[in-house]
Amino acid sequence: MTEPYELYYWPIRPGRGEFVRLVLEETGAHYVDVARLPEDEGGGFKPLLEFVQGLRPGQPAYAPPILVHGDLVLAQSAAICAYLGERHGLAPDDSGRRMQALQLQLTIADVSDEAHNTHHPINAALYYEDQKDAAREASKSFLDQRLPRFLPYFERVLERSGGEWLMGDGLTYPDLSLFQLVEGLAYAFPKGFAHVAGSTPLLLDHRNRVAQRPRIAAYLASDRRLAFNEHGIFRHYPELDLSN
Amino acid sequence: MTEPYELYYWPIRPGRGEFVRLVLEETGAHYVDVARLPEDEGGGFKPLLEFVQGLRPGQPAYAPPILVHGDLVLAQSAAICAYLGERHGLAPDDSGRRMQALQLQLTIADVSDEAHNTHHPINAALYYEDQKDAAREASKSFLDQRLPRFLPYFERVLERSGGEWLMGDGLTYPDLSLFQLVEGLAYAFPKGFAHVAGSTPLLLDHRNRVAQRPRIAAYLASDRRLAFNEHGIFRHYPELDLSN
Repeated sequence: MTEPYELYYWPIRPGRGEFVRLVLEETGAHYVDVARLPEDEGGGFKPLLEFVQGLRPGQPAYAPPILVHGDLVLAQSAAICAYLGERHGLAPDDSGRRMQALQLQLTIADVSDEAHNTHHPINAALYYEDQKDAAREASKSFLDQRLPRFLPYFERVLERSGGEWLMGDGLTYPDLSLFQLVEGLAYAFPKGFAHVAGSTPLLLDHRNRVAQRPRIAAYLASDRRLAFNEHGIFRHYPELDLSN
Repeated sequence: MTEPYELYYWPIRPGRGEFVRLVLEETGAHYVDVARLPEDEGGGFKPLLEFVQGLRPGQPAYAPPILVHGDLVLAQSAAICAYLGERHGLAPDDSGRRMQALQLQLTIADVSDEAHNTHHPINAALYYEDQKDAAREASKSFLDQRLPRFLPYFERVLERSGGEWLMGDGLTYPDLSLFQLVEGLAYAFPKGFAHVAGSTPLLLDHRNRVAQRPRIAAYLASDRRLAFNEHGIFRHYPELDLSN
């Protein structure tokens, strides 16, 4: 299939779509970020809602991001990243190693979910303003108990990988997602992140190494890159950044 | 590799380990459920903690379940299920379809995480008793707003699959996980589940169809199957089953 890829994701937030965008950008593949097109060119929320409401044929998607590639309609950011990674040389060939790359991607997704839960502990469908007290408690627990385990975990993976990247000598798709996770945590919790990151030098080097990849650097400097904001997974609410 | 598989998971809860056990049982593979062995045969918590504390060689695992197969050490239940599914004919061959099976598995994992969040909204590391008020709010949101979207989503996947199973004519690993999810939701929220499940007949048929697979039926009747209890993802606290 040589069709360009189509990505469907909420146009105003980096969110889970950003994990996919980083892989697309690193591959240099041609893709259309459909919902960010003007509405009269088929963009906006409408095409997204058609998927979520089951109005499009093919295997239903529960939620964006959704990748369309020829006849294939694929949802779930980790599955999309794995699909693209395997097609474009950003995944190991061996079946066990391929699954270990997926393992790392899923652990990154778990941390992202926990980071989202800090501002939406009661329900993702309610406003932050309606769950602020619980959010304060959840954030404190996250910063005191979870972040000091998550970041050293990835530090240990890098320490053992035998190379500059998570899986060793070659960059794979979870490297790009780890970059986004670290950037997001540093944005959401500048104090809490700094408190832990002092003891994870390999992780900070890794973040810089990803940012300096030529295609990633060009992407980060472009207007295709959505800045972090208070509509995504990683939100900066100063009242939740309760570092000890 | 012909070695038996070793599964490492908390011995007293079905939890995420159960998704893996169901795949192992359906394949008929020989496996050792290590932590459930007596301590003097290498069982108990000790071997689990060795992984989590990074005392074992190989790619670090953040948390159980962990599968050991020869030299391969693999964590994350969805990655383990995919690995086993692909090795034992419980996954599609085509790369796009293979990823669509993973997509379904990840959506099942998302619903499981939200179900866990109903009793641990503030932090998975705190006791339920220390977050009961938030848990009541979270459960109400889950039953009112989330379950009525999740179950019909899987109903729609079954409707469109063109066969008896999620991916069509052949059973794949997410079918086994969907069974566990539906069983778990029915255990945790008998009233809330019944309220929604009346409109998802295909899902209920699917659950029965999985339970009647000869190897699964034998497993469910054996003492290898751990009953649901208040240590896992799906917990029955009557005060949280607030159906309208």
